[in-house]
Amino acid sequence: MILKIEHIGIAVKSLNAQKVFEQVLNYSSYKTEEVNSEKVKVSFFTIGESKIELLESTDPTGTIAKYIEKKGEGIHHIALAVDDIKAEMKRLQNEGFEFIYPEPKYGADNQYINFIHPKYTNGVLIELCQDLNKYPLNQ
Amino acid sequence: MILKIEHIGIAVKSLNAQKVFEQVLNYSSYKTEEVNSEKVKVSFFTIGESKIELLESTDPTGTIAKYIEKKGEGIHHIALAVDDIKAEMKRLQNEGFEFIYPEPKYGADNQYINFIHPKYTNGVLIELCQDLNKYPLNQ
Repeated sequence: MILKIEHIGIAVKSLNAQKVFEQVLNYSSYKTEEVNSEKVKVSFFTIGESKIELLESTDPTGTIAKYIEKKGEGIHHIALAVDDIKAEMKRLQNEGFEFIYPEPKYGADNQYINFIHPKYTNGVLIELCQDLNKYPLNQ
Repeated sequence: MILKIEHIGIAVKSLNAQKVFEQVLNYSSYKTEEVNSEKVKVSFFTIGESKIELLESTDPTGTIAKYIEKKGEGIHHIALAVDDIKAEMKRLQNEGFEFIYPEPKYGADNQYINFIHPKYTNGVLIELCQDLNKYPLNQ
């Protein structure tokens, strides 16, 4: 089941952009995290039940660096919280959608994630996130 | 005060994209509305405390038509719910931000709105929305 907007991911050249979002939101980022597997440093802001994630590339060959090179800074993806990512993947694959990864992978903030290929979703990169703190995997 | 993500606005060539988002979310759009002042037809989906708005241009000279021509379909803006848009505008103008309109204007869904100029916010178009149902104007 799709539960809420988990976060909006914004590609920035540098996490100095934190200052701008602190001014807009009028409060501070609650965490900065480096995700080596994704070649990014991420800064998180809470907003209601959702988050804003600023993404800075740590490697010129990374996805975010390439995105900025091609399209400039801006909104990179939206992430939807789900309670069971494998069930959602199966449901959507049955409707003809394809995913970037054949299986979900572990992302920032203890999330189990995958992305719907944006060619199916009008150019919007949509991530699905299962929060393993709230919805642990059945073993 | 910034309260939550009010909506994510997605520019689409045609509201036929509704079908795709109905498949992804696994439920239907709750409303379609034409906003003549903005030259758009809008389809709304609830997601948690937020919405997804699909925007189709009704006029080739409209903002959304021009956006798609330049950048293709995709996420166009994010909207933040506020309780007092004039107070937020004043606060942000004092920090050096500029707004698209000198005064808020009436948008879709009984919202009183304005946009921060994206040159200040790392290419992200940020709308502020005061829901006049919940936060009526002081007369």
